[in-house]
Amino acid sequence: MSNSLFDQHLPLFRQALAAVENRVYWTPFPENPAALGEEKLTEGKAAFEAYRDASFYLDQPGVVGRNGGEVSPYGFPLNVSYPVCNPDALILAARGAMWPWVKAGPETRIGVCLEILLRLQAHGVEMAYAAMHTTGQSFPFAYQYSVAQALDRGLEALACSYREMKQVPFRASWTRPEKSGPVTMDKVFTPVPRGVGLVIACSTSPTWSAFSGIFANLATGNPVIIKPHPEAILPLALTVAVARNILKEAGFDPNLISLLVDDETGAVARIAALKPEIHLIDYTGGMSQGRWLEENAHQAVVFAQRSSCNCVVVDSTDDYKGLLRNLVLSLSLYAGQLGAAPRLILVSREGLRTPEGVVSAEDFGRDLAQAIGLLLEDGERAAELLGCLHAERLLEGLEDARNKGEVLRDAALLEHPHWPTARLYSPLLVKVDVRDERVFDREIFGPICFLAETATTAEALAVAERIMETHGALALGVHSANPHVQEMAAEVSLREGVPLHLNLTGSVVMNLSAAYADFYGTGTNPAANCSFTDSAFVSRRFFLIQTQQPALG
Amino acid sequence: MSNSLFDQHLPLFRQALAAVENRVYWTPFPENPAALGEEKLTEGKAAFEAYRDASFYLDQPGVVGRNGGEVSPYGFPLNVSYPVCNPDALILAARGAMWPWVKAGPETRIGVCLEILLRLQAHGVEMAYAAMHTTGQSFPFAYQYSVAQALDRGLEALACSYREMKQVPFRASWTRPEKSGPVTMDKVFTPVPRGVGLVIACSTSPTWSAFSGIFANLATGNPVIIKPHPEAILPLALTVAVARNILKEAGFDPNLISLLVDDETGAVARIAALKPEIHLIDYTGGMSQGRWLEENAHQAVVFAQRSSCNCVVVDSTDDYKGLLRNLVLSLSLYAGQLGAAPRLILVSREGLRTPEGVVSAEDFGRDLAQAIGLLLEDGERAAELLGCLHAERLLEGLEDARNKGEVLRDAALLEHPHWPTARLYSPLLVKVDVRDERVFDREIFGPICFLAETATTAEALAVAERIMETHGALALGVHSANPHVQEMAAEVSLREGVPLHLNLTGSVVMNLSAAYADFYGTGTNPAANCSFTDSAFVSRRFFLIQTQQPALG
Repeated sequence: MSNSLFDQHLPLFRQALAAVENRVYWTPFPENPAALGEEKLTEGKAAFEAYRDASFYLDQPGVVGRNGGEVSPYGFPLNVSYPVCNPDALILAARGAMWPWVKAGPETRIGVCLEILLRLQAHGVEMAYAAMHTTGQSFPFAYQYSVAQALDRGLEALACSYREMKQVPFRASWTRPEKSGPVTMDKVFTPVPRGVGLVIACSTSPTWSAFSGIFANLATGNPVIIKPHPEAILPLALTVAVARNILKEAGFDPNLISLLVDDETGAVARIAALKPEIHLIDYTGGMSQGRWLEENAHQAVVFAQRSSCNCVVVDSTDDYKGLLRNLVLSLSLYAGQLGAAPRLILVSREGLRTPEGVVSAEDFGRDLAQAIGLLLEDGERAAELLGCLHAERLLEGLEDARNKGEVLRDAALLEHPHWPTARLYSPLLVKVDVRDERVFDREIFGPICFLAETATTAEALAVAERIMETHGALALGVHSANPHVQEMAAEVSLREGVPLHLNLTGSVVMNLSAAYADFYGTGTNPAANCSFTDSAFVSRRFFLIQTQQPALG
Repeated sequence: MSNSLFDQHLPLFRQALAAVENRVYWTPFPENPAALGEEKLTEGKAAFEAYRDASFYLDQPGVVGRNGGEVSPYGFPLNVSYPVCNPDALILAARGAMWPWVKAGPETRIGVCLEILLRLQAHGVEMAYAAMHTTGQSFPFAYQYSVAQALDRGLEALACSYREMKQVPFRASWTRPEKSGPVTMDKVFTPVPRGVGLVIACSTSPTWSAFSGIFANLATGNPVIIKPHPEAILPLALTVAVARNILKEAGFDPNLISLLVDDETGAVARIAALKPEIHLIDYTGGMSQGRWLEENAHQAVVFAQRSSCNCVVVDSTDDYKGLLRNLVLSLSLYAGQLGAAPRLILVSREGLRTPEGVVSAEDFGRDLAQAIGLLLEDGERAAELLGCLHAERLLEGLEDARNKGEVLRDAALLEHPHWPTARLYSPLLVKVDVRDERVFDREIFGPICFLAETATTAEALAVAERIMETHGALALGVHSANPHVQEMAAEVSLREGVPLHLNLTGSVVMNLSAAYADFYGTGTNPAANCSFTDSAFVSRRFFLIQTQQPALG
């Protein structure tokens, strides 16, 4: 059964391998839910509704109770209860499940994982609703980002894992010439996993940020225990349920993947992270928890994606309108709740050169504020673009940011066309002095964007570099028609390990990265210590263990 | 100049890439110095002699004094003095040298590194004498292991680094279909190094254990500072001097590689390891220093090769004489001073099945002791095989080991045919009870081998597994003609991450691993946290930083 899954999905998988190899655009997961047709959408919505006010079924070991208090940012409690399991029971079960999975070999494991991804795609609409009503993403964006693009990242992880495991032949014949005649040794190489992996997910990107680690672990033979954020359990509970079913169908122990839900203490992540049997940790979340894991979970390899302060330097442009449109799109998308959203825009007091003349820094601020208004004029479109604030506590950040400078455009609670109690907010634009220490005294997250002036563009780049080095960054946006500035920007990007997005004026935004082509996070600045999906991200999850013996006959 | 080096060495480098790809026997570095001819040997010896009683010249920055007190294990002081440099000065110079090296790109860097390896090969004889008179290796073994095989490990690291950097195209064109027409982005990917690397070398394997890290660092763009063991400076000083010259010739700053010699405090390694600018550490040495680095040098990625307790399980054989010969060869080679030397032999009280009948555990011990005597009967051969104890303090370990059980064959000070005051010792064989806690109360190193009996072979494997899990292991030797035992042994090997050497009866020994084919160390047991040279060993040394911009036209 299980080997046939690899064969069955091989044409698809070959395309994924080629896409990763050539870093081109490709996806087997269409991003537009409308293309699914009304029936699929209705069915998926009904499937989501069926989870509400009910107990989520998972046949996991070590159940000690039930928990779950998710509340939709659109204004109602989900009222789903999940089994709370003892971490030791999940670890024990995972370890028990591991060896048959290891011995099945890379092809079988990847065949099963491909089947999981495709089955999750079939559950895409309910997954999107689950993401929408936990993270606050709009439904179309949830389908695009938390389903299609998350599946892409999972598939990319499978392709990268396979490539790494296949770099070494599983058998080799080694012949050394010697005086007394050649000596031949038979060598066998087996990829052996590091051990049980713990994936600690976040509240705004529960699937997209977790799927790389989950599928890299499974592909390389490591069982995985998923600790969802208490505010966004359902998308990962669905993932685990689907994966467990397919593992069972394929003849494997479903405890290769399990869900570790928080109990009342809220300390489950830290307790599990220090268990000696946990050998891999994938973490997405705030800076302090990430640092704590790295400094304390010595027994594990820790892959951490943390907070960041992404900068945009505006020097000059050939397309001023395009610049404004792209920038507003970028800072409005899911209301700044993606890791790579722009947080600080820097503009020189010398102004911004455009084909229509120089725009002063002051005018630029005003134009940007106006452009936000224009983009969000249409209520339906605003709701789709902004989604909702995933948690009430983000309002504190808004309040705090307002007091840090001159408000160029205030955040406003907008009326959602369908959900009257949704936490739908337009972005806040505040002009600050970057030398003011208060600006960075808390992590900037959500619908907040700061604007600051510098003496020159060179100073803007220097300021951006210092901020990215100190607070971390996942993306650097630069608008410049000047080759010299472009070159300086490229140098900053290389020095700080931040991908450079140059002159984005169309539909491509710095917040979203494309699987198979774009690396997300680098490890050279505080925002992350790993990258989706480079070689180090997968190759650290397994070892090649070898046997040699004299060749027979 | 520099790009031409890559082109010039490309035929050689292609062969190295193919060898790594296919894990076959291959080397461009012949291991037998006799093949060089008398003239080369005489010249090389003279070159070595010229370093004695002199100041070693290195034009490094930040010189604060001179130091160096190496004493040959063959019985005379080298009396070489090296410049002692301030670590901060070396770090500053390394950082200053880095960016032109990064921008030169992978081909140029690897071309220069290939030239360094080949130039070191040309200095092979003096390198071998330098290794001999610091580590105590015999001259032929020093030439084989510390020159030829060390160069192989360096070349392997270059091949693996190149493969990893080339996994991603440096440019890609990415086109996404959209309603309003396709959008094309140009993407550029640049491998960017992690930062300055520190290589902390050991006294018994100064080159072989360090060359993988040194050349992986340089190939991926990281400058490297080498901290040699105070007892084995000369082989690495030579390496650094040759490398600096070639870097200069190729138009680069020689401070891409420098030598950090201990001052009187002996704390230089720890001080340098905690500098915030040190982003990579390659360490070979004892367990406690390795652990300390991993737990304290949070700012760096630490690759550590530590101590180990390698086991051999003797169950049955088709070639009893071959078994004895190989085992004695293995435990005599460089007097047990290689990391993967056998430390503990386990045999069942049920005896050892051979084609000539069952050999009792007791008889096996006696036969092994006798075989040691036979192999070392010829003084010239004994000296060549055993080399010398690299330090006087190893005698304490011998004394300690004698008291742990029944001495089956005592270590003896042998008369060296050419060096009357050489520390030439035959191996000690002691029968112990593995349940005796004293057996493992200190690291077993040097010409010591323990022999222990178990009730069955299954128990022997279980004991070996427990010891390897607790104390670490780099090699597991098993002799068995029984497929069931072979299978059990393979499972132990996979579970503990220890390469399995099955039924070695010829010239291949478990102590030596072959570059391009064999992985050395794995990271799944305490002996090491990395492997020469798997993908993780090189891919963690750089990041792929990307720039994207809308395609022009």
